[in-house]
Parts: sequence; C-alpha cells; structure tokens
Amino acid sequence: MTPALPFQTTINLPQGFSFSAVAAGIKVSGKPDLALVEACPGTTAAALFTKNRVVAAPVEVGRASLEASRGRVRAVLVNSGNANCATGPAGRLACKRVCQNVAHLLRVSAKEVFPSSTGIIGVPLPVEKIASNLPRLIAARKATEAAFHEFAGAILTTDTREKTACAQFRSGKTKVSLLGVAKGSGMIHPQLATMLVYAFTDIVARPAELKKLLREACDQSFNCMSVDGDTSTNDTVLLLASGKSGVRLDSAALRKKFRAALLEVCQSLAAQIVADGEGVQHVIHLGVEQAKNMNEALQLARAVAHSLLVKTAWAGADPNWGRILAAVGYSGVNVDPNRVSIFIAEQLVCQNGAACLFDEAKAHEDLCQPECSVRVQLQRGKASVVFTTTDLTAEYVHINADYST
Amino acid sequence: MTPALPFQTTINLPQGFSFSAVAAGIKVSGKPDLALVEACPGTTAAALFTKNRVVAAPVEVGRASLEASRGRVRAVLVNSGNANCATGPAGRLACKRVCQNVAHLLRVSAKEVFPSSTGIIGVPLPVEKIASNLPRLIAARKATEAAFHEFAGAILTTDTREKTACAQFRSGKTKVSLLGVAKGSGMIHPQLATMLVYAFTDIVARPAELKKLLREACDQSFNCMSVDGDTSTNDTVLLLASGKSGVRLDSAALRKKFRAALLEVCQSLAAQIVADGEGVQHVIHLGVEQAKNMNEALQLARAVAHSLLVKTAWAGADPNWGRILAAVGYSGVNVDPNRVSIFIAEQLVCQNGAACLFDEAKAHEDLCQPECSVRVQLQRGKASVVFTTTDLTAEYVHINADYST
Repeated sequence: MTPALPFQTTINLPQGFSFSAVAAGIKVSGKPDLALVEACPGTTAAALFTKNRVVAAPVEVGRASLEASRGRVRAVLVNSGNANCATGPAGRLACKRVCQNVAHLLRVSAKEVFPSSTGIIGVPLPVEKIASNLPRLIAARKATEAAFHEFAGAILTTDTREKTACAQFRSGKTKVSLLGVAKGSGMIHPQLATMLVYAFTDIVARPAELKKLLREACDQSFNCMSVDGDTSTNDTVLLLASGKSGVRLDSAALRKKFRAALLEVCQSLAAQIVADGEGVQHVIHLGVEQAKNMNEALQLARAVAHSLLVKTAWAGADPNWGRILAAVGYSGVNVDPNRVSIFIAEQLVCQNGAACLFDEAKAHEDLCQPECSVRVQLQRGKASVVFTTTDLTAEYVHINADYST
Repeated sequence: MTPALPFQTTINLPQGFSFSAVAAGIKVSGKPDLALVEACPGTTAAALFTKNRVVAAPVEVGRASLEASRGRVRAVLVNSGNANCATGPAGRLACKRVCQNVAHLLRVSAKEVFPSSTGIIGVPLPVEKIASNLPRLIAARKATEAAFHEFAGAILTTDTREKTACAQFRSGKTKVSLLGVAKGSGMIHPQLATMLVYAFTDIVARPAELKKLLREACDQSFNCMSVDGDTSTNDTVLLLASGKSGVRLDSAALRKKFRAALLEVCQSLAAQIVADGEGVQHVIHLGVEQAKNMNEALQLARAVAHSLLVKTAWAGADPNWGRILAAVGYSGVNVDPNRVSIFIAEQLVCQNGAACLFDEAKAHEDLCQPECSVRVQLQRGKASVVFTTTDLTAEYVHINADYST
C-alpha cells in the first residue's frame, strides 16, 4: 500500500559543494541531527520562507543574513530535533551564535552562514551540543555522494526516508547539474515553501534571477501540495548556485532549460514529501479543472484536500463523491453546483452536480492503488491545477497524538 | 472518557405540537427513519440554513415554502438515512411529492409542510417507501413526551444518543415553554446552522421576530462549534411558535426572557452535538480572548479548531502548545506572535509567544478530562469567543473511512 516512490538513485553532484553530518545528541534517538553544506566562494543564493506569522528564529536570522550578504551563502547549517521556534530573543541569539561559530571555523562571514532548524516547537536550542560538535562536522565535509546522503538523512524528523532529486542539462559541451534534498512529513501545507528544501546547482546566476526562478518552480510544486493542511513555522526553500560549471543564465534557451530542470527537481521532491506523509496510504492527485483562474482552482483544491471527511473516505478507498461535492460547496469559490462534475480515475461519478451511474467496485479498486487521480470540473473557465495530497489514516492520528510527550 | 452530557431528562412540551416516528425502511438498519411534527393552526416559523453552495433538495424546497407561506408551518417531515442531496431536479420533485402527500393527509397547504432529510449524499430519495408509510406516521402522532422522544430518535444517523433541551419562563402566571431537538455528529461545522435542529415554543411571535431571535441564538451556539470542520449540505435550524401560551413577545422584558431561554436551548443542543461528535474523546472549550472583534476571534478559533495537528495532540492529551501557536500564525489574523499567550485549563503554557515553565503532568491530566478549556490571548482588543470543538481520534477515521460502502 506504500505509494510508489519517485526516488532517484543516481546522484549528480553539482560542482562547488561539500556535505557532512554528525549525531550531536539533539535527537533523543541518538540519530544524526546536525548537517552542513559548504559552498565555494562566489556562491549565490535565493530563499523562500513560510508565510506563517509565527516564524522560527532560524527563519528570521536566515532572511536577515541573506539580505545583509546580498544573496551570498558560503555555508548552510541544519539541525533536526529542535525547531528553535517560540524561543523568543534567546532563540535568535542562540541561532546567531552557532552561525558565528561556523563562520569562525570556516573563515567566512557570519552573514554567509544560512541556518535551519526542524523539530519540536518551544524548546530552547541546545547550543552547547551544537557548538561542541561543529569542529567534527566541519572536518568531515566532502564533495561526495556518500556525504550528500549523510546530509539528506540528518535533516529528517518523522520522515521515513530520504528525499532527493536531480536533473542535468547541457549548454554546448558543458553539463549543468541540479540537485535537491528535502525533509517533511507532517505539518505540510506550504504557503511559499515546504519544510526544508535545499537545491544546489553549478550554474552562474545572480541572486535576483535565482529568486524569480525559484518562486516560479515553488508555485508549481511545493505550493500545490499538502498532507495535513498545517502550515509550518520553519518552512524554507534555499537554492544555491556555485557558478562552477561556468555556464551563465544569459539566454532565453538556457533559462528555459534551467527552469525545466529546477521544476523537475522541485516537483519530484514535493511528490516524495507527500508520499512520505505521516500515516499516508494513498497519494491523491487532485485536479481542479475549468476554473476561472489559478487562485480559485487552488482555493477549491485546498478545501477538498483539507476536508477530514474527504480524506478519511480516501483512507477507506470509498468513492463517496458526495463529500467532495460538499467541500466544493463550502470552498468559498462561487461555483454553480449544477455544473460540477467529478471523476475518480477515468470514471465520471458525479455529472452536473448529481449522481450518475458508475462502476463502484472499479472506483474502489482505483482508490485502493498507492496513487489515484480525482478530478473536479467546474465549467467556469480554462484554469486548472493538480494538487498533490493524501488520505488521512488512523496511523496519522497515532503518530500525532503522542509526539511531544 | 465520554464527555459529560448536558442532557436534560425533564421535558416540558410546549402546547400546540404533536410528534410521531416510524421505520420506513430508508435506513438499512431497519431503525426508525421517518418522523413528523404537526403544529396547530397559526404556528409561525423561522429557519436558518447551511451556507454551503451545494444544498440538498429539502433545503431548497423548505426555504421556498417558508417564503411562500410567509413563515407559517403546519407540519415538519424529516427522514434520516438519505440526504436527498446532489439528486438534481428529480430530488426536488421527490421532496415536493412527499410534502404534498403530507399536506393532503393532514388537510393543510403543501407550502406549510417543511421537509428535512439527513443521511448519505447522492442517492435518490425512496419516495414510495416514504409515501406508503405516511398514513401510519400521521395516525401515530401524539402530544406526549414519549412521542417526542420517538421523533428525537428517528432523526439520528451516526449519533449515539438523542439531543434535546428545554427551558421555561413565566409571564405573570403564564408559563412559556421552549423545547429543542437536534441531530448531528459528523460533517459538523455550521456556518449558520447545524445539521438539523428543531425548536418549539408556545409563545406568540411574528416570523420576523422569530428569525431575528433565532439568528442571535445561533451565532452564540451552533456557529461557535465544530467537530470536523466540514460544513454540511443539509444544515437546518427551524423554530416554530404555536402561540398557544397566549403570551406575546411585546415587551423588552419578555423578549429578554425569551432570548435567554432560546439561547439556553441552542447552547445545550450545540454542546450535546459536539460531545456526541464522531469518535470524540475530549471536548475542548477553546477561548480566543483579547481579539479586535468577533470576526477575527472566530477566524482564529476556527484555524486552531480545524488544525489536524492540534486536534490529534488533544486526542493524546498532549500539551503541545507549539502546534496551537503555529495555527494562530497561519490563521490569517494579523497577530503579533510576541504578544500571544496560551492557557491549558488554568495554567499559562506559552507567554508572549515563547515557552514558559509549567507543570506538564498537570496539563496532561487536565487534557485527559472529558472537557477542558484552552485559551489563546492576543493582546489586540476586547472581543472574545468560546468555540466548542473536539479532538480527532483514530475512531473518527475508522467511522468515516467506511461510511458509504
């Protein structure tokens, strides 16, 4: 029943980045929980952050540092097991202190160290544990596939598996590589970004170019998915460009190639996050079609994707389209119920707002698959969106009924 | 662990109403599923309906009939086991036909017969089953407590118990009675009304007066609660006034008494619906305090009350206030996170957006109770609301993962 994995096994490391991870004792489990990326001099960066008004200290510090450095990053320090959120001024000081320590050890500027934290909210960041493990972490850094996988594993919390994706394209004879890594399994309803996503490339690009391209790619990936509808306080997507390929983003053709590669990486990571959602048994590709515009398509998709009754019906592979129609009705989108049709996989199950004959056994079988499409057609316009979401299982409840205690 | 019941055992029947119920074979279980109220000549009425754009046939027919009759009702016909929703023009015809049958048998006008349906969406209403059982249903009607309980039982679906409430007050030597009955357990997030609520009184009142008073009472009861955040397609609250007490709503003092009695009945029914919510183990009285206005207080309460992570933490009696703070942050209300404080029962657990020392064992114990209060203070103004909601348990998922199939 586990959803199929779009997991990629071949990793193409972009030039200019090294990785490492150690167990610093932040996680009670003793698993790796402190991870580092070192980026070569000249690396440019762009980041998108959560739209939640409650933001964690590393989001505040990271945003300010990127601004101060004008989009330059030389190191990324990530800890799992502690979100450093709702920790007040002390939390921001703690975050700055570990950034300064990294900067000192790597001989870079503190504003070029980008911090991230993920884990429980409201617990002070264990600065001493982090500081005392930094020398070991930095000494271990390597530009190898194995080191990258160690990084990818150390940033996880309730995730059951690593999430990585890569893409390559050519500019003449030169290869440009893109590599992404993500964590996220619960509290997934990104409004600009998802939990933590890092993407690395060796293209040459200005921070402003990166920002624009990153926003485009996020709108079509992390902003079109949810597990539980809870927007995190720590969501961060960071894109780093080392410039080591020597290829510049200076033609429309190249921008098109890069845009496609970045979208591929982001969409793969988004799909992996949803597939690894807490307790998830079924991934649903929820299409909203014939909407007036993207905004209303997304608004309607979110209402359906966040309906407990719809999500629990999906858990039971129950073709109960009435619950989908009810959620369409309260979505706030000005639909005419008599023009709404619903498909489960290839079958029309509700036509113009009313029941129609369909093969219920077949619809049940389709919904039993690890992935299934559900489409809602509105007859209002030409905009459409595919929103990736999940069922809601008793396992999700079990996982989350006892997380902090 | 079952929440304490505000269930009232003494029933004071207002004059002018008789009740009955039969098993018409609409429910597969064979339980009573067809219920009737007959109201005496001159009975006035007001109703509020779901704000869902997808509305069931009886909601459309009932709304039109009330308008055509200028707020007069002589009979209410309710069936459970079938929502008559998403059934198209045939569904409206079916609804009108059973109303006509009732009108013919009771010798009243069809527009004075108010229809309600609750149950599964998208299945044609079994008109023949209903029509053939109407003579028996009508013959059985009685103005007795026992008949009222039969009515209260026959309108239930996934509910585990009857929900009734009553209130009385005096005008001089004359008693005025108010009696309410409700059904609702899942798909509970009323936007104007809840699933099905009927309230009966023997006061003399114009339909417009009733409507105003009913709206006020609903705003402070059914509009301040949710189980799963799904707004139903069939929500209906109907208030009938027989006038049989002879007491008129013609003084401020009487209006005040009636308003208080109606609010008491509505709040009791709302509490009973939440306590009987599907899979509910804990009822949470979620206070939002120091908001700028009621609207933002409600908006924030709904975001917290509908967060899967918050609801599952409550299921585990887990004092994980970070999830509450995160939901406050994405609620859309313009809060300053550094001014937000959170209480669990009497304990402050988050002060000005940051962790503070508290007795976690005590907070866990408080959340283990059938009912517990959680308060969020915003330091923005003087408006406050208490929103009644529930935890989300694995049992809810089990109930809803296999309802239609």
